[in-house]
Amino acid sequence: MTALNETHDPSLTSWVESANIEGCDFPVQNLPFGVFRRSGTREAFRGGVAIGDQILDLNAVRTLRVIRNQTAADALRAAGAGTLNAFMAMGPEAWSALRRALSRILRTGAAAQGKLAGTLVPQREAEMAVPANIGDFTDFYTSIHHATSVGRLFRPDNPLLPNYKWMPIAYHGRASSIRTSGQRLPRPRGQILPPGGNTPEYAPCRRLDYELELGAFVGAGNNIGSTVPIGEAESRLFGIVLLNDWSARDIQSWEYQPLGPFLAKSFATTISPWIVTMEALEPYRTAWTRPDADPQPLPHLDSPDNRTRGAIDITLEVWLESERMRREGSGPALLSRSNFRDSYWTWAQMLVHHTSNGCNLTPGDLLGSGTQSGPKPEEGGALLELSKGGREPVTLANGERRAFVEDGDTVMFRASCSAPGRARIGFGDCAGTVLPAA
Amino acid sequence: MTALNETHDPSLTSWVESANIEGCDFPVQNLPFGVFRRSGTREAFRGGVAIGDQILDLNAVRTLRVIRNQTAADALRAAGAGTLNAFMAMGPEAWSALRRALSRILRTGAAAQGKLAGTLVPQREAEMAVPANIGDFTDFYTSIHHATSVGRLFRPDNPLLPNYKWMPIAYHGRASSIRTSGQRLPRPRGQILPPGGNTPEYAPCRRLDYELELGAFVGAGNNIGSTVPIGEAESRLFGIVLLNDWSARDIQSWEYQPLGPFLAKSFATTISPWIVTMEALEPYRTAWTRPDADPQPLPHLDSPDNRTRGAIDITLEVWLESERMRREGSGPALLSRSNFRDSYWTWAQMLVHHTSNGCNLTPGDLLGSGTQSGPKPEEGGALLELSKGGREPVTLANGERRAFVEDGDTVMFRASCSAPGRARIGFGDCAGTVLPAA
Repeated sequence: MTALNETHDPSLTSWVESANIEGCDFPVQNLPFGVFRRSGTREAFRGGVAIGDQILDLNAVRTLRVIRNQTAADALRAAGAGTLNAFMAMGPEAWSALRRALSRILRTGAAAQGKLAGTLVPQREAEMAVPANIGDFTDFYTSIHHATSVGRLFRPDNPLLPNYKWMPIAYHGRASSIRTSGQRLPRPRGQILPPGGNTPEYAPCRRLDYELELGAFVGAGNNIGSTVPIGEAESRLFGIVLLNDWSARDIQSWEYQPLGPFLAKSFATTISPWIVTMEALEPYRTAWTRPDADPQPLPHLDSPDNRTRGAIDITLEVWLESERMRREGSGPALLSRSNFRDSYWTWAQMLVHHTSNGCNLTPGDLLGSGTQSGPKPEEGGALLELSKGGREPVTLANGERRAFVEDGDTVMFRASCSAPGRARIGFGDCAGTVLPAA
Repeated sequence: MTALNETHDPSLTSWVESANIEGCDFPVQNLPFGVFRRSGTREAFRGGVAIGDQILDLNAVRTLRVIRNQTAADALRAAGAGTLNAFMAMGPEAWSALRRALSRILRTGAAAQGKLAGTLVPQREAEMAVPANIGDFTDFYTSIHHATSVGRLFRPDNPLLPNYKWMPIAYHGRASSIRTSGQRLPRPRGQILPPGGNTPEYAPCRRLDYELELGAFVGAGNNIGSTVPIGEAESRLFGIVLLNDWSARDIQSWEYQPLGPFLAKSFATTISPWIVTMEALEPYRTAWTRPDADPQPLPHLDSPDNRTRGAIDITLEVWLESERMRREGSGPALLSRSNFRDSYWTWAQMLVHHTSNGCNLTPGDLLGSGTQSGPKPEEGGALLELSKGGREPVTLANGERRAFVEDGDTVMFRASCSAPGRARIGFGDCAGTVLPAA
């Protein structure tokens, strides 16, 4: 289990000045990993670490030989590759060693500062790639508030199904259509049953929605036929990104019985490009509890450690910028705010459940948390919830109204962690823009 | 669109004598592709073609320079790799050129026979790999007979849902746990609700089942945001394997609402290792029809060509060999026989539907057909159907009875195609053996 160490020291600053600006998502206490190249070039994609508004090019760092610890140097080699799968497979000791080494060379006063300045690439000049070859994408459904309010729309008499409180419900998602922040997605077409009709039509989606989620990248996996005990689950997780599980509600309601969502989700999924490591999230861990009246988890999904620190305090926000806001320069409007601390299940429980049948997870697999809605109506993590199934459109600051996402809208997620006596860290942008149907 | 050509000539024989034996799955008219190495070695996996009881080592063929057509030679290089993804991405012209060249060098009297004899590896001495890096696995549900009889067990009042006749229903499956024939799988554990109980337990599956399916490998894919018109759909499919979608029925019934099957399926999926190409299947194409009383497909899922030849006449069989049968040497028992011709939807319709929302397919993606049950009760493609939900166990030839699959059972699928005046071709084995829960 990870513990607080020198990399979490809130008094640390970086010689990369932009990392020290208050409100910066990427101070030296964060150090998230991603894969990038300079925009508009044909350079190879390669691993980097975000620091302030810059990217530390890990391949360039390697050639400078400023990291001498062998474990860290081996990890640096893997983390510089075009996908992070091999680095993810190395496990927490390697991740932690590299993180410590990077923290040391990026701190104010680091001896290597002079050499390293040339290895920085401004984030605004970079193009980000999906940071791993995602073998399988699994999407959970861990917010009981989301499950209840969406369940009420699809099944008014039976919003929360009996299995919900016993297992972290999930389904297999589509890996091929995952892209990083900045994704521009045409409004999908699909089979839609007109209200009151019996005959579906093939038409552009009219109820396009976002879903505010986190995604966790799997580090070392497990062999097929084996299970991961809850005490080991956290060590299999590399880190977390923001994830927009774009959803076509009208396609979904027609197709989803009996095998679950399919084309309603598979046209696009947007993630933030910087993976905030589990170690960086350590200071924001918090107790996981569940109402006494609810069933307590079965033994294989329960542990003292999971109860003490299974949850993570991550503030989540959804912003929307319409074409008109962009034109008028008014800036985006906040749609909702929620917190991952309210999730009914923890990452450890998700991973244990996933492997409980012997299913093998592999390095680079992505687990989605499911839409994170808070307990209050205004904390819904999807427009479907905020607009009560489209019946009560949300009014934005400039007077525009939204029941669902419209063409030209950019949906942006933001997230951050803070705790008393700790640095604030953030996740960067997870933005996607909807284009008219092709 | 593929048409019959010289490779389909039923009078052709091969200098590999075992290919000419009646009932052989791999005559010279078949030429399925796979990936292999010699068992018990650390050789690199590489592409091969099955001929009789031998494998033609494609890398070895390449070094002999007996294939001079440039398109075929380029395809040969790609098909010799450790996964067939690059070959699949090349498209029908390349596949067809290589197939023609291989047919010519393997025919009786081929000039290259002397050189090529040394490139053969006996199938019994080979270990087969999953032939492609499967980016995404999608499982359809195209047998209306299966959907109706299983639907009746899960939803007695409402067996066939209203969307079934309008779209090929599907869900995302798990790619990581797909293995080739010979897979030995421990009985999965999972959350199970005891009959009449309210509290689930975590226990070994008691209702383990197989599902008789075909799997189609995607060749060239489509860009995200684009769709594939039905006239082009067939050209995106490389070929077909047998697929056992192992299913834990007790886990499934507890978990599957509202997001569909997850752990009930993800512990293991077995495929036959030899991909029978769409071109090899050409002589067995047949008309696709649907009862006049049923809704006809929406325009984007319909075409004259799909109606004329969308279906494929493939006889499918399920065999079971118990531990006792193995011990007594009595050989396996036939459980059922059905035919893919009875599928309610065609491969072209599946692929068109899959991309109808702009979802990008990538070379090496695998599409499962769903369980192929025939119209008669004894043609059920899963024990769940044959045993009426476990209530009426099937009696095997040696007196053993099966409601579900038991530890030590080997489930084997076989399939073949034949047509008047055409050669018979087969798919080889798709076998898996169930071990006790770990």
